[in-house]
Amino acid sequence: MPLGRKLNYGMVGGGPGAFIGAVHRMAAALDGEMNLVAGAFSSDPEKSRAQGEALHLDPSRVYGSYQEMIEKESRLPEGERMDFISIVTPNHVHFPVAKMAIEAGFHVVCDKPMTTTLEDAEELCRLVDRHGIVFALTHNYTGYPMVKLAREMVRQGKLGTIRKIVVEYPQGWLYKPFEAEGAKQAVWRTDPKQAGVSSAVGDIGTHAENLARYITGLRIERLCADITTFVPGRQLEDDANMLVHYEGGARGILYCSQISVGEENNLTIRVYGSEASLKWRQEAPNYLHVRYVDQPEQIYKHGNDYLDAVSPIAQHNSRLPFGHHEAFIEAFANVYRNAGRTIAARLAGEEPSAFDLDFPTVQDGAIGVHFIHTAIESGRKGTWVDARYTPPGG
Amino acid sequence: MPLGRKLNYGMVGGGPGAFIGAVHRMAAALDGEMNLVAGAFSSDPEKSRAQGEALHLDPSRVYGSYQEMIEKESRLPEGERMDFISIVTPNHVHFPVAKMAIEAGFHVVCDKPMTTTLEDAEELCRLVDRHGIVFALTHNYTGYPMVKLAREMVRQGKLGTIRKIVVEYPQGWLYKPFEAEGAKQAVWRTDPKQAGVSSAVGDIGTHAENLARYITGLRIERLCADITTFVPGRQLEDDANMLVHYEGGARGILYCSQISVGEENNLTIRVYGSEASLKWRQEAPNYLHVRYVDQPEQIYKHGNDYLDAVSPIAQHNSRLPFGHHEAFIEAFANVYRNAGRTIAARLAGEEPSAFDLDFPTVQDGAIGVHFIHTAIESGRKGTWVDARYTPPGG
Amino acid sequence: MPLGRKLNYGMVGGGPGAFIGAVHRMAAALDGEMNLVAGAFSSDPEKSRAQGEALHLDPSRVYGSYQEMIEKESRLPEGERMDFISIVTPNHVHFPVAKMAIEAGFHVVCDKPMTTTLEDAEELCRLVDRHGIVFALTHNYTGYPMVKLAREMVRQGKLGTIRKIVVEYPQGWLYKPFEAEGAKQAVWRTDPKQAGVSSAVGDIGTHAENLARYITGLRIERLCADITTFVPGRQLEDDANMLVHYEGGARGILYCSQISVGEENNLTIRVYGSEASLKWRQEAPNYLHVRYVDQPEQIYKHGNDYLDAVSPIAQHNSRLPFGHHEAFIEAFANVYRNAGRTIAARLAGEEPSAFDLDFPTVQDGAIGVHFIHTAIESGRKGTWVDARYTPPGG
Amino acid sequence: MPLGRKLNYGMVGGGPGAFIGAVHRMAAALDGEMNLVAGAFSSDPEKSRAQGEALHLDPSRVYGSYQEMIEKESRLPEGERMDFISIVTPNHVHFPVAKMAIEAGFHVVCDKPMTTTLEDAEELCRLVDRHGIVFALTHNYTGYPMVKLAREMVRQGKLGTIRKIVVEYPQGWLYKPFEAEGAKQAVWRTDPKQAGVSSAVGDIGTHAENLARYITGLRIERLCADITTFVPGRQLEDDANMLVHYEGGARGILYCSQISVGEENNLTIRVYGSEASLKWRQEAPNYLHVRYVDQPEQIYKHGNDYLDAVSPIAQHNSRLPFGHHEAFIEAFANVYRNAGRTIAARLAGEEPSAFDLDFPTVQDGAIGVHFIHTAIESGRKGTWVDARYTPPGG
Repeated sequence: MPLGRKLNYGMVGGGPGAFIGAVHRMAAALDGEMNLVAGAFSSDPEKSRAQGEALHLDPSRVYGSYQEMIEKESRLPEGERMDFISIVTPNHVHFPVAKMAIEAGFHVVCDKPMTTTLEDAEELCRLVDRHGIVFALTHNYTGYPMVKLAREMVRQGKLGTIRKIVVEYPQGWLYKPFEAEGAKQAVWRTDPKQAGVSSAVGDIGTHAENLARYITGLRIERLCADITTFVPGRQLEDDANMLVHYEGGARGILYCSQISVGEENNLTIRVYGSEASLKWRQEAPNYLHVRYVDQPEQIYKHGNDYLDAVSPIAQHNSRLPFGHHEAFIEAFANVYRNAGRTIAARLAGEEPSAFDLDFPTVQDGAIGVHFIHTAIESGRKGTWVDARYTPPGG
Repeated sequence: MPLGRKLNYGMVGGGPGAFIGAVHRMAAALDGEMNLVAGAFSSDPEKSRAQGEALHLDPSRVYGSYQEMIEKESRLPEGERMDFISIVTPNHVHFPVAKMAIEAGFHVVCDKPMTTTLEDAEELCRLVDRHGIVFALTHNYTGYPMVKLAREMVRQGKLGTIRKIVVEYPQGWLYKPFEAEGAKQAVWRTDPKQAGVSSAVGDIGTHAENLARYITGLRIERLCADITTFVPGRQLEDDANMLVHYEGGARGILYCSQISVGEENNLTIRVYGSEASLKWRQEAPNYLHVRYVDQPEQIYKHGNDYLDAVSPIAQHNSRLPFGHHEAFIEAFANVYRNAGRTIAARLAGEEPSAFDLDFPTVQDGAIGVHFIHTAIESGRKGTWVDARYTPPGG
Repeated sequence: MPLGRKLNYGMVGGGPGAFIGAVHRMAAALDGEMNLVAGAFSSDPEKSRAQGEALHLDPSRVYGSYQEMIEKESRLPEGERMDFISIVTPNHVHFPVAKMAIEAGFHVVCDKPMTTTLEDAEELCRLVDRHGIVFALTHNYTGYPMVKLAREMVRQGKLGTIRKIVVEYPQGWLYKPFEAEGAKQAVWRTDPKQAGVSSAVGDIGTHAENLARYITGLRIERLCADITTFVPGRQLEDDANMLVHYEGGARGILYCSQISVGEENNLTIRVYGSEASLKWRQEAPNYLHVRYVDQPEQIYKHGNDYLDAVSPIAQHNSRLPFGHHEAFIEAFANVYRNAGRTIAARLAGEEPSAFDLDFPTVQDGAIGVHFIHTAIESGRKGTWVDARYTPPGG
Repeated sequence: MPLGRKLNYGMVGGGPGAFIGAVHRMAAALDGEMNLVAGAFSSDPEKSRAQGEALHLDPSRVYGSYQEMIEKESRLPEGERMDFISIVTPNHVHFPVAKMAIEAGFHVVCDKPMTTTLEDAEELCRLVDRHGIVFALTHNYTGYPMVKLAREMVRQGKLGTIRKIVVEYPQGWLYKPFEAEGAKQAVWRTDPKQAGVSSAVGDIGTHAENLARYITGLRIERLCADITTFVPGRQLEDDANMLVHYEGGARGILYCSQISVGEENNLTIRVYGSEASLKWRQEAPNYLHVRYVDQPEQIYKHGNDYLDAVSPIAQHNSRLPFGHHEAFIEAFANVYRNAGRTIAARLAGEEPSAFDLDFPTVQDGAIGVHFIHTAIESGRKGTWVDARYTPPGG
């Protein structure tokens, strides 16, 4: 590691009762390459303080607001001050925190969807570019070794021409109006003020879009969405089914749901080419199923030596030998580790490697926000809509 | 069995090299309740004769054409003449054979899709009614015990209100223009003159529609289809993805494909209700997965005593104890057995039981033909279309 | 088919309420190559008559005893009389029926275990040889196409040297003393007078031994068995675990159980060689898993063209295209079809093909009976015992 | 957390190229409750120093030997000095390090098998007791939430009387003499000087024994082992199959293998009771399959609310919501977290909770060592041997 020390980071959000903040902290801790040194864990200073204490942080670096954190940390010397900020708040807070962090020169790891409006997303693209910031978006599902293998196999042409992509992300946890009972995770995700224009598409549909694009490299050209709110009283959609045309002629289905009772977190992608197809499921993430015409089905499994030749990057993102499974946290940690090493290289004045640079970017974030709005628009109109989009910088 | 003898049947189609004809014969033979006594196996009299000989039929009852078969068999006394006709030809021949058979008073088992035009389908509905004929359509996938269990559980309200149906039928066997090489199964299925307006939807999409309707009882109200021909030179579509609205507010996805490399015959249905969901896969047909909110997933398995209380009809359509699996032929045989017992009851002047009457009807056939045409129309227009339809008699 | 007609057969056993008799009849009927023409379905003439009527048999050929059947059928001309006898009675009746049938010149299909004593088994070996009889034992699990593929792959050396065989056959259906409640299937299987010296080993352990030997070609040299009767009051063992040494240095585990609650019919075999291993499960029988060192796992699936090169015999024993699954009855039917074609060839004075001759023989039966007795003896002694054995004729 | 600070720990072993040391570090880091502050990573001081640098440790606390580490750390004040020592060396070094650590008052987390001789194991039992030390053995497979659920269900009597336990641990990675090529992991595990009397049983068979005992609470009374070295030139066994009798009448099979080509890390346990059975696989660890007589199979899945009532301890050992899978590192981390919290409570003068105390102990270690020696002895003798054993203190 070029920097000769661990990275330091501060967290915005992730107070008591939050789900994803704890995940970010475990992901950041796993590899022993970075320390949490500061936090503004809640807009309620008392809650922030309590969380900092539970995490054994230096109380002087537990702040009552992100503004305070950014200001005060900026004054600390490098090596002591935080090197980057993790943003793990509800969606509507991502933008102001990220903007202020970038302008103060802090690198950023931000949860998805990046912003609630496309204007904000594009503004971030420009800011990141202007300030030379490393910006990573936690589309964590692209962190799995077998997803990286899938991308490699597509790139190497093993599937032939991509014809069809079926990507689905069914969950069932919002099958009832839990938000009416005050369930924290349900409340903000179904509240337009905090979540933005979309619940299901914004929270999970965007992961599906990102995963399909990461593996195949293909962007969506047109889509036709059927957007539904099944649970009475809910303000945002909880189910979305889409017909999708990709650039280059591939077609497919993309759907996400929060009311599919019995489904847990069943993100699944199938990519069919003219020569072969592949299948990957988040709930059995150490396997990649590849099926060629006229050969037995093949199951690639993480950590095996035969991956060395096919996909060094899959191996690079795997920590354990075969049969010793890695799962959600490890994939999430790959985003942190890769982004962290990129940040460390920049701080050390060195060039990050191609392996380090393998994490979702601010442009991925803008594409995701554009996708969310396009899907909701198509659903409102009940027609196919143009979905082509190129964000600033990419 | 009220008739006191085995049923006799004749077959139209199913000559040398045919696939589905042999399946029909095995399905009919399995339970020892009916004999193949006559056949017009090919429009080529020599091929028909050869097939009859291979099947050890009385040469005097192997005919050179279906017309000849129907005429000559009509003159034989009951008990000797065929009681019903199995039609296993390419699609475009179903109608003329069925029409002549019905008018001659023969009961009919017919492969799907029932006809190539809606006019013909409706004509058959009227003929069946007018002549008091038992007409069974071999939507064989509804013959599986676990599919029948699924229907029972929906009917008993165990899923609550149905919200979403995802039914998919991917195959990969037509990923190349095998029809250009003269492969028999590929040739007729991709030839508009023999297959009708559709290949994928007609051959397998219609099974998906039938399965969803059989299990949930819901008809499609609107749909939006994306219809694609991926293989160059092919005259009919080989892939179809649809957004679907069902009566009563349920929504979903229905898709079928013949170019999904690596997929074999992967008909799968997931039905999500407000209280529970179920999943069934044709390639593991002895299991039904049921997932309630806040309970462990449950896997029902064919042949267990606990099914007695939940679904006597599932048990009735199962021949073996648990762990001794039944598969494609056995499910197909259930259509034959149930239709056959209905025919036998009619011949004996008795009323068939509700269990006997559990097979797809001529109205199912008309609904299927309407669905095929609606899907193709939607695809052509690129819009949502109205899909409501009630066939003559139902 | 060289004979120019269907084969005729008669059945001994398989009266009302029997399980395996109905399976034999479906297996024999499936391919349309043989007719059931006679039966002595029960030692109770009235039950035999009722069963014959239910099967629409000619009443004059429904007999009150097997002796009567063999005597009277012997007097009928060839082509009218039965060509072979199916023996589907409880174990202790196999020998007398088979002996009389053979001596009368009838070919035999017999359920397993072949006899209750080794003396009887060896006597049948000698009789079969002396009378030139085709004798098939229904070790039906060797009838699966993927089992035949497994054998081919071992023979072709794809696994290298066989090192370890783990074959298990757990069932749970006898977890309680159902025999005390009069349950027909339980009563005879746990009664030493009808079942012989063993219940679990005799009923299912012998299938496991046969399957391992069929696939690998290896005979057992030594074994150490732990034999247990878990259910109070039961006279025979309901669980058996064995350490096994095979000829050539392979070792392994063989176990069977009737009290493994929750297990249905979970016969599973794993064969490990120095270069690769394979796995097959009866409850997912259309797949063969092959795992080489340093390659992705491969799943062979029935009915695919790529099997043509690897195992024509697997293809020969498959009736349907890929994805259209075959199961218990179809595998059972392969024993009937292959044995039937061998019988037909003999009747026609022709040589059966190697494909026709692929069914378990009277020697397999004797080896199985010897295995059963050896296992029980080892369990009684609590030591390793010598298990080497060569039956008369093989 | 009662201590008000993070725990500190030092590591012995885990230098460059080691496998399990890195796992321990990730497991310790995951929850942010402890810091690695010191290390003697290798018996080669230069390698130790390099590893310390890679881990960004204070160079003054990277030691050239465990003796030096224990001596120097002992002189540091509490809160600064390490609170416990992680021992991750090859087996033969566990004992001297643990002994010295305990005598110096350091708590211990030690890899398994605990020692190479039973005398050493018993000595550790006595030392731990005498010095009031918290000693945790990393039988990590008992750290999985679903394993804890399994134990709860057995304890609650849901399985009825335990009848049969089938526990298997096949691996394939030593199918060739990789030790002859100098592969580090292979070399020490097959070297009697470093591994002790056993390779396969010591490395993985002992996990199987521990898992069975953890879930069922049953100790082994007798066993009969078949011990084999398949790979030529190897000094220790690479395969072991055992018949096992447990206290209370349960019987079963326990096997482990390092030459089962194609197997990765397939630890699997099935426990059959008189009323129900359960199945758990390490390679799909978030599911527990439970099968009652006459009910559908039930699959319990980690993180669901319905576990609250059945097994609070399973929930307590789960970090993520359902569908967000936890795997090897998370289970390993549970041993660290629970042992760490016990250590922290002791340091704070408080009583650890029952949840904290849920980790494998020094007595588990002694039982494991006794099991290893018993299995090897049985294999050598070729007979059943008595396996009853009670370690000092338990």
